[in-house]
Amino acid sequence: MIFPIDETHNPALTSWVETAQGHPDFPIQNLPYAIFAPHVSDPRPGVAIGDQVLDLRGVAGLGLIDPELVPAVQEATLNALLALPVEVRRRLRTALSAMLSSVQHERALRPLLHPAAACQLGLPAAIGDYTDFYVGIHHATNVGRLFRPDAPLLPNYKHVPIGYHGRASSVRPSGVPLVRPNGQRKAPDAEIPDFGPSRRLDHEVELGIWVAEGNRPGAPVPIAAAPRHIGGFCLLNDWSARDLQAWEYQPLGPFLAKSFHTTVSPWIVTPEALAPFWRAQPPRPEGDPDPLPYLWDDEDQRQGALGLELRASLSSAGMRNAELAPQLLSRAAASNMYWTTAQILTHHTSNGCNLRPGDLLGTGTISGPTREGYGSLLEISRGGAEPIDLPTGETRTFLEDGDEVVLSARASREGFVGVGFGECRAVVLPAPAP
Amino acid sequence: MIFPIDETHNPALTSWVETAQGHPDFPIQNLPYAIFAPHVSDPRPGVAIGDQVLDLRGVAGLGLIDPELVPAVQEATLNALLALPVEVRRRLRTALSAMLSSVQHERALRPLLHPAAACQLGLPAAIGDYTDFYVGIHHATNVGRLFRPDAPLLPNYKHVPIGYHGRASSVRPSGVPLVRPNGQRKAPDAEIPDFGPSRRLDHEVELGIWVAEGNRPGAPVPIAAAPRHIGGFCLLNDWSARDLQAWEYQPLGPFLAKSFHTTVSPWIVTPEALAPFWRAQPPRPEGDPDPLPYLWDDEDQRQGALGLELRASLSSAGMRNAELAPQLLSRAAASNMYWTTAQILTHHTSNGCNLRPGDLLGTGTISGPTREGYGSLLEISRGGAEPIDLPTGETRTFLEDGDEVVLSARASREGFVGVGFGECRAVVLPAPAP
Repeated sequence: MIFPIDETHNPALTSWVETAQGHPDFPIQNLPYAIFAPHVSDPRPGVAIGDQVLDLRGVAGLGLIDPELVPAVQEATLNALLALPVEVRRRLRTALSAMLSSVQHERALRPLLHPAAACQLGLPAAIGDYTDFYVGIHHATNVGRLFRPDAPLLPNYKHVPIGYHGRASSVRPSGVPLVRPNGQRKAPDAEIPDFGPSRRLDHEVELGIWVAEGNRPGAPVPIAAAPRHIGGFCLLNDWSARDLQAWEYQPLGPFLAKSFHTTVSPWIVTPEALAPFWRAQPPRPEGDPDPLPYLWDDEDQRQGALGLELRASLSSAGMRNAELAPQLLSRAAASNMYWTTAQILTHHTSNGCNLRPGDLLGTGTISGPTREGYGSLLEISRGGAEPIDLPTGETRTFLEDGDEVVLSARASREGFVGVGFGECRAVVLPAPAP
Repeated sequence: MIFPIDETHNPALTSWVETAQGHPDFPIQNLPYAIFAPHVSDPRPGVAIGDQVLDLRGVAGLGLIDPELVPAVQEATLNALLALPVEVRRRLRTALSAMLSSVQHERALRPLLHPAAACQLGLPAAIGDYTDFYVGIHHATNVGRLFRPDAPLLPNYKHVPIGYHGRASSVRPSGVPLVRPNGQRKAPDAEIPDFGPSRRLDHEVELGIWVAEGNRPGAPVPIAAAPRHIGGFCLLNDWSARDLQAWEYQPLGPFLAKSFHTTVSPWIVTPEALAPFWRAQPPRPEGDPDPLPYLWDDEDQRQGALGLELRASLSSAGMRNAELAPQLLSRAAASNMYWTTAQILTHHTSNGCNLRPGDLLGTGTISGPTREGYGSLLEISRGGAEPIDLPTGETRTFLEDGDEVVLSARASREGFVGVGFGECRAVVLPAPAP
């Protein structure tokens, strides 16, 4: 496997940064990257350790990292770091793990730590293109069933990792509020549409995949080489205006129903950090077609799926005022993806399309097979027919102004220290006057 | 109108650059911008005049342009120039028109001219996002008829300027060959798809719109303000693999069928240059719905359509070997757009989506109402059923390897000097081994 388990995953490894021990997301075994601003306007690459962020530019200034990496950490985005060959990226992880575990570096590095809570965490990369897939088979089935009860999945679904181009300009880091979109809405019984605030605003629980090395135009990435091109993962909330979507999406797909705002968690959790949590892709149900040869790789089938649990929670303004905890909406395993990340990436390039470092791929909504795992309100409320109750006595079918959705993810495995992704959150603000 | 006819459009105006007089595309009344490289690796902004390119960085070096503009022309893209307020962009046009018409500047400027034929012309801007619309109503009708003979246009078409997100990374300037894509193809009578070179490779005749000033996230652009955000126009060939498209496009729209290559002409023809050619949007046919208020502006209806003729030609490798002229495939008026460029831009931002300077919007294929105006081979060959004859005795339903498609456009009006767009061309190369 291209992502080997090594000394950086040793569960006995501890850091001189005290809060790393037992940290649910960022123990020393994780070491995800972000762009952070310790001061108002000087964003730079950092790595999470416990509740602190280590300034990588500062580390380079001390001469402690590979000269090949020094230019990359001078940037205000992680694109240059993502563009480096996988071997170089892996050496950085190894070096950071050693520095943060060995007390001999504590005196030099401690001044380069910043409390994460006091930092602004931005978008990790300048996103050249954002593509969203649709590989959560239970989500595709649930949504399809609302429209086509007898044939929820279209004939191409089990042959093609379905995806579409998304909007890069409106991807925002966790914490930036989203403004409810206005748009054309047409009720099934209305003769013509009207224009106004979306009445069916929804969240979608997704994983984001950050592209590392790119490929040249016209030069597809064979599936065996795909892991080299995966720079890491984040949480992604693909906010969706269902009423706009239903009216606009034929024949060219979702457009303004999605392009108003997409939230990502700020940390890039590397595939190397997740080494202990890669696992076999679940076998396809009896009768499903085999993937075509360009999407098949034995190694990918053995170790190409991620052992992660994804969660979504909701808090209304009323709940926060009453200091009530957010309500869990869903928990689901990432193994509900019908296609692996390598299959997604290889399919994307199979026509010669060039990916660039810092491109973002969404998996599509990942739902579990039952109600507890549904990754959108469209599924949870069965198209708006079955409201859920909140502890304040409020009910929800879709999101109201003031609602906040928080996504989280966690990888765990017996014998290893679990890691998390941090938070992906945003509050809904009212629509502007139409 | 925000784009007034002024002294720069005076038909009596001539340039000391001799080839400007009578030039079909680039008389002094046009003055489009491009990124050109006079040497191998030093791309910079330039302006076309006759068969020459004037180096704008050099002009700034002489102190001849507005200090506000100087930083923008130091860049290797036109994004910074596009980002400037419309008033500043207009002053540049006025200044260039004066410099290139007045012999007092000839001695200083002549060393800054480079023969266009000897320059590399690149992408004019770093494209943050590329969006493709579908506003050519005859194209939408023709394509829809192949699938739904009784109801070719979907119910949303006359209410919504339909569009979808495209792929920015694979937009290439004119002249870069395209590689035929591999992909999943499923014949209607086949049980499962196979993977291989597209057998139904097509061109699409479109106009591209370059975004000038951007808008903030959550802050839609009202239609009356839309013209300020239009930086200019180009030709756009939205190469399409129809067999991949037919199999993959449901339910999320075209993806790999389009993302392998999109060709744009290198020159940004400004809306100011086109001032004499803006005209009234043709009235909608009796019975069509009125646009919703957010898409309606009296001024836009009076002057928001472009008086342009678009042409596409084809030459096979055999035709070029025999030194035969390219064969005209189509000619159509841009007024076959069901929505104006202002309506397109305003709709795009109506949900709060932020556009950025240098974003590219395609209009969608612009076909005329009859066979002579069909802007794609899918329409010309009626879905592959009716081949066309080439002068070599070859026939075509879709594109073969070695074929070259050339798009051109021209604006003309009695009493004014007509202007053109230059060429948008590319040759089809064979697919790589699957």
